[in-house]
Amino acid sequence: MKLWDRGESLHPVVERFTVGNDHLLDHRLVAYDCQASAAHARMLNTMGIIDDEELERLELSLAEIAEMDERGEFEIRLEDEDCHTAIERHLSGKLGETGRKIHAARSRNDQVLTALRLYEKHELAGIKQLVVGYSDALDDLVARWGSLPLPGYTHMQKAMPTTVGTWIGAFAAAAIDDQRQLDAALHLVDQSPLGTAAGFGVPLLQVNRSATARELDFGRVMHNPMYAQLSRGKFEAVVLGACSQIMFDLNRLATDLLLFMTSEFGFASLPPELTTGSSIMPQKRNPDVLELVRARYHLVLAEEIKTRSLCSNLMSGYNRDVQLTKEPLFAGIETTRSCIEVMCIVLAELRFDEGRCRAALTDEMFATERVNDLVLRGVPFRDAYRIVARTVADPCAWPSADERAAAARGS
Amino acid sequence: MKLWDRGESLHPVVERFTVGNDHLLDHRLVAYDCQASAAHARMLNTMGIIDDEELERLELSLAEIAEMDERGEFEIRLEDEDCHTAIERHLSGKLGETGRKIHAARSRNDQVLTALRLYEKHELAGIKQLVVGYSDALDDLVARWGSLPLPGYTHMQKAMPTTVGTWIGAFAAAAIDDQRQLDAALHLVDQSPLGTAAGFGVPLLQVNRSATARELDFGRVMHNPMYAQLSRGKFEAVVLGACSQIMFDLNRLATDLLLFMTSEFGFASLPPELTTGSSIMPQKRNPDVLELVRARYHLVLAEEIKTRSLCSNLMSGYNRDVQLTKEPLFAGIETTRSCIEVMCIVLAELRFDEGRCRAALTDEMFATERVNDLVLRGVPFRDAYRIVARTVADPCAWPSADERAAAARGS
Amino acid sequence: MKLWDRGESLHPVVERFTVGNDHLLDHRLVAYDCQASAAHARMLNTMGIIDDEELERLELSLAEIAEMDERGEFEIRLEDEDCHTAIERHLSGKLGETGRKIHAARSRNDQVLTALRLYEKHELAGIKQLVVGYSDALDDLVARWGSLPLPGYTHMQKAMPTTVGTWIGAFAAAAIDDQRQLDAALHLVDQSPLGTAAGFGVPLLQVNRSATARELDFGRVMHNPMYAQLSRGKFEAVVLGACSQIMFDLNRLATDLLLFMTSEFGFASLPPELTTGSSIMPQKRNPDVLELVRARYHLVLAEEIKTRSLCSNLMSGYNRDVQLTKEPLFAGIETTRSCIEVMCIVLAELRFDEGRCRAALTDEMFATERVNDLVLRGVPFRDAYRIVARTVADPCAWPSADERAAAARGS
Amino acid sequence: MKLWDRGESLHPVVERFTVGNDHLLDHRLVAYDCQASAAHARMLNTMGIIDDEELERLELSLAEIAEMDERGEFEIRLEDEDCHTAIERHLSGKLGETGRKIHAARSRNDQVLTALRLYEKHELAGIKQLVVGYSDALDDLVARWGSLPLPGYTHMQKAMPTTVGTWIGAFAAAAIDDQRQLDAALHLVDQSPLGTAAGFGVPLLQVNRSATARELDFGRVMHNPMYAQLSRGKFEAVVLGACSQIMFDLNRLATDLLLFMTSEFGFASLPPELTTGSSIMPQKRNPDVLELVRARYHLVLAEEIKTRSLCSNLMSGYNRDVQLTKEPLFAGIETTRSCIEVMCIVLAELRFDEGRCRAALTDEMFATERVNDLVLRGVPFRDAYRIVARTVADPCAWPSADERAAAARGS
Repeated sequence: MKLWDRGESLHPVVERFTVGNDHLLDHRLVAYDCQASAAHARMLNTMGIIDDEELERLELSLAEIAEMDERGEFEIRLEDEDCHTAIERHLSGKLGETGRKIHAARSRNDQVLTALRLYEKHELAGIKQLVVGYSDALDDLVARWGSLPLPGYTHMQKAMPTTVGTWIGAFAAAAIDDQRQLDAALHLVDQSPLGTAAGFGVPLLQVNRSATARELDFGRVMHNPMYAQLSRGKFEAVVLGACSQIMFDLNRLATDLLLFMTSEFGFASLPPELTTGSSIMPQKRNPDVLELVRARYHLVLAEEIKTRSLCSNLMSGYNRDVQLTKEPLFAGIETTRSCIEVMCIVLAELRFDEGRCRAALTDEMFATERVNDLVLRGVPFRDAYRIVARTVADPCAWPSADERAAAARGS
Repeated sequence: MKLWDRGESLHPVVERFTVGNDHLLDHRLVAYDCQASAAHARMLNTMGIIDDEELERLELSLAEIAEMDERGEFEIRLEDEDCHTAIERHLSGKLGETGRKIHAARSRNDQVLTALRLYEKHELAGIKQLVVGYSDALDDLVARWGSLPLPGYTHMQKAMPTTVGTWIGAFAAAAIDDQRQLDAALHLVDQSPLGTAAGFGVPLLQVNRSATARELDFGRVMHNPMYAQLSRGKFEAVVLGACSQIMFDLNRLATDLLLFMTSEFGFASLPPELTTGSSIMPQKRNPDVLELVRARYHLVLAEEIKTRSLCSNLMSGYNRDVQLTKEPLFAGIETTRSCIEVMCIVLAELRFDEGRCRAALTDEMFATERVNDLVLRGVPFRDAYRIVARTVADPCAWPSADERAAAARGS
Repeated sequence: MKLWDRGESLHPVVERFTVGNDHLLDHRLVAYDCQASAAHARMLNTMGIIDDEELERLELSLAEIAEMDERGEFEIRLEDEDCHTAIERHLSGKLGETGRKIHAARSRNDQVLTALRLYEKHELAGIKQLVVGYSDALDDLVARWGSLPLPGYTHMQKAMPTTVGTWIGAFAAAAIDDQRQLDAALHLVDQSPLGTAAGFGVPLLQVNRSATARELDFGRVMHNPMYAQLSRGKFEAVVLGACSQIMFDLNRLATDLLLFMTSEFGFASLPPELTTGSSIMPQKRNPDVLELVRARYHLVLAEEIKTRSLCSNLMSGYNRDVQLTKEPLFAGIETTRSCIEVMCIVLAELRFDEGRCRAALTDEMFATERVNDLVLRGVPFRDAYRIVARTVADPCAWPSADERAAAARGS
Repeated sequence: MKLWDRGESLHPVVERFTVGNDHLLDHRLVAYDCQASAAHARMLNTMGIIDDEELERLELSLAEIAEMDERGEFEIRLEDEDCHTAIERHLSGKLGETGRKIHAARSRNDQVLTALRLYEKHELAGIKQLVVGYSDALDDLVARWGSLPLPGYTHMQKAMPTTVGTWIGAFAAAAIDDQRQLDAALHLVDQSPLGTAAGFGVPLLQVNRSATARELDFGRVMHNPMYAQLSRGKFEAVVLGACSQIMFDLNRLATDLLLFMTSEFGFASLPPELTTGSSIMPQKRNPDVLELVRARYHLVLAEEIKTRSLCSNLMSGYNRDVQLTKEPLFAGIETTRSCIEVMCIVLAELRFDEGRCRAALTDEMFATERVNDLVLRGVPFRDAYRIVARTVADPCAWPSADERAAAARGS
């Protein structure tokens, strides 16, 4: 059954093509749709469209659907198209006429949007919690190893001395900013679209949009009904942008760790239970987990690009194109969650090789300190720089141009 | 069981994180791995590493696995990591020592690559067939409606007369070029990586790489073993690039059709079984199928971006990051296939409103023809242009600057 | 002269390659660097590294450089690499030893970052002002045309009645959210990096980072010196993300207008001075300006992608790669500015064809209203929907499957 | 003067906005437009639209324009919009009526396309030459250092022995495939659009498209005039895709070199004239040149994305949006050229530290060889793997779980 069923059948290839994976993906939204449908039913009750008994039955059935879904027992069939239809079908099947009343004063458009925004709010809050846990894991690492000296690098070349505390502290500081971006995204999506219907509001019926917004704990009502449609994809891109930003930090931290875990750098290592082996090289201990965190940044970024790109150049009002923002949204959020989680495990198990870290602080890394020492004695900075430059061993250790020319001549 | 199992267990969260969806996705590769493993076994036989009887048992078991998988009965468990391990596990379980011999002279790295390249060759050929069918559908449409006049547009404004035949013919011409790009991609991937092992070849053992390449119908051997690793992701991006190119044409054709099917343009329509309805607007007939083709271009493009982006800035040699090119590859290919298929159905069912098409050829669209008529009479082109410009009704129909100024003054 | 000049010359091709366009692009940063260098000099004065007279001379020279640059007279030579070197060269040339003192207690790394962040703060504030102006232009349009009825569309098909006010109001609502994202971006970048030097702080010297931050009107100090480096590219991506979001709205508004300005829709038009002509079709009036707004969204999005992509998979600490985020940042910001500006002109000049707008509200668009009327009379929504569905003229007007089959048989 | 000038002036902000940088960028196309315009004039002569004397004067003037432009003396003014208008203006100014005849039987649309395709063909051939030079540089490097042993890495961990020859050989093999992709791109763009006019052909006039195609050395005529418009952006994306592919290899090679040039790996180095210094760390020798090659891959990729993204969701026929593909095309091509050129210099100057390369081949890297030795003696591969696994020193050197638990208990 489709909500718009008029007794004609859709071409089976077209049906499969248009539904895509929605009947599988949509289980993420069932609980939120039940919550929103219950709030909507209560509002219909205040409007006199459903009576008290009908409301009670709808609320019970919606709660039941949410529970069934949690147990993995609520079925969304291909021909349902999505969870919203499956829920209305279930209600109509169970409650008859009462079920057929619930779609008054709303459209599938605002219904989808409302469920998505509730999902997003929940996930953004969940990700923020994960980021807090990740910050704690960074702090713990600093508590254990913070004072250990470490070479600081620029251009991948040894530059000046730093410490594990400063290096890891950079990611802790980044995590604070990431939380603020999550808050900004959360504030953006915290607008109730329920009651905007198909983007043109609800003719004749007097809907109480503030009431449903309040019940669903939205911070405000999205007043302009066409903006609700314009926000689809746009808001999702902001949510994914906040995820990308977190993933960016994880990408950079993973990159550092992968380098520090090479035998050449040798600063850090992971225990066997966090490394994998090779099918032919029995000696290998591979940090796959960090490679996959590094790589997954690119996936989340591409999910964001999908969302931004596919909603462009579209006329105002609902376009089916935007249905395809669901999968990138879910994928981006779930990937981000799993990467933060696994990074917490990595951080908890990481250990450093103190000897190698200390030994890596070679003499030339203190050149800037020597420059500044001269500055303190009154030498202009640029002069001090040139004085020290003449004394440091050249890391290149290249022969002079003359020597090289001679060598080339074979003399 | 993992191929590299050394009796230590991997952290369960890390295991799930590293395997990702591979145990589900990899069913696409089982048949190709069985084919490649059989070719490899035959080569091991010529090397004397497995005897004739062992070879026969391996070949039988591999054929059996492929059949099981086709029936949906071959299991790839999370702890197998991927289909390659599941296959070796199955062989070892069934054939004992013989099964434990098959991984000699190869690595999982070249095993994955070989299966992927066989898959890609098969899919590129399949997509080419679909493009041929799509070309036929375009030709059929031209045969039916080709001579029908249609306004030609530039800047979305009516420009000069054209026909359905010219318009659809542009897509037919594009499809020819797309086939050439598919051929170029096919030629690129048609190199056997089998025998490059982990990117460093096979020490001590004398592998016959030409023999396995020939058996697997590869056009040539990829001689440099490190290039096999460098090609991972790079070749996949080219395959996806060929898909993007096809999708680009479909995106543009869908965009045209969506516009021509608005009530305002009204040139074309689709039958009910290819359109969907609205949950609240009983009068609607929506061309969702075309919106989703349009949108899916952006998805395929983003899958290509994923592949190109996540393989960048990586050190030579295998990096686990590249495992994540599998899902975009599969997604991009499957999306492209389904869009071509559905577009063939659309083209077969599309019909035009002759009256509205003809009526749309309004007089001003012949202005260039009038210019050229003057040119034929010897008027320099730019002069002819200005002469005609003075005579055509201005589509803007804006009052002159003076009139507007007067109106603004209220006079 | 390079800041790091040690008497060896850089290969000329390499010099050109590494400098890129920085010597041209960097004029955008000269004023900000002068401002930051003056603040830094005042702090060096409090540290006793430069005396009061030196400070005065530095402040005068820096002010002079900023003025020269504004007049287009300050030269950044290719061999200077960037504006920062050109400024130090100028100071050293003019002030001798005093000029050679100014680089104490800072590095080019934090110098670049500080100038960039001042630039970003200024531009974000400027863009916000433009968005306010654009909102005003939207409001003016609503004031003039708001009550004019307009068909509302879903799936590009006529759906339900709406008005110019509701449609344009959606963009006004979007502009409010965009301002909030600009604020979030502004808050993020409002952290002073000055004093983080090359990412490892300043050995031996006691810098007063709060003092310079306060003088430069930064909201807070970025305490972790390695975070300053990690923030490069990441913050720029957030700034560009805020731009992309604005551009997204403009893209959608331009798409609507381009459609509404076709002769087929015919709802709106632009005066001749905002349209262009064709080289061969004398009758054309083309809305290029809107096509270019639409297209430039994609450019800004790609500038954001550049920034996000090129900073990935990099080791912590400065990498020269990030220098290449400058051009996308400037391009994205300047494109966004120009598009908002031009859109304000478009909105001021846009006018509607009342007759065509009203005539477009055809009868079937009121079907949902008829459904709701039945709902008010007590008919369950889904039943009312089906009742109305049977009465509306089918926009497809396709013959039944039987009729079509008969036609296909030629009977 | 604009080609479509009708005596009305364009709003100055709109003029600047629509022209963008075209008047600067277009100098790249002047020579190609002159070449194509001359071919077009010869065809107009055979049609009788211009006589022999006029033809001669046009040919002379066009040659003169090309020479002026090469000397930097041909001006394209903002109000010209582009080089095509500037050329027609110049011809009309100089030759009067003869100049005003040249635009017969073409449109600016096919004129731009023709110049672009000639430019692309020239650039693709030029890039191919550069790739040949780069291949030679790789070969030279192999000739000098090929037999030097080098550790092979997987997962950034030492894996098995390899050589400089194998490692660099992978890039040489990649360069061969890249040349094939350049050929495929070249074949694609080698179609003459001249005579397709605005996408609808030339009414009344009998143009000889084969003649101009032959004169301009195009491989074939693009017969369908609307395909010429559809190919805009699409072909450019393929050209940029071929560039991206080359840049991908350079990105990977640069990444390897940057790693091998760290003091920790220490396998390779560059002479002082290819490295830069730090503004505060006098000891630094930074490989900026390689970091910028690495980063510029992302820029070229984003230019490709721009092209692919901004042409999507557009109606058939010319849309001004596609004008914006010019800048990404030029940027992508020029960036690619400069990166190949600079990489040739790097390869010529690179040298290896033999001692460190040899010393890096530590014992555990031969574990697979030992496994294969057992295989040769008849041990099944997987059993041999496990035998060797027990004997190799664990690179992790982690205490057992028991030991760790004891340590955690503090016992």
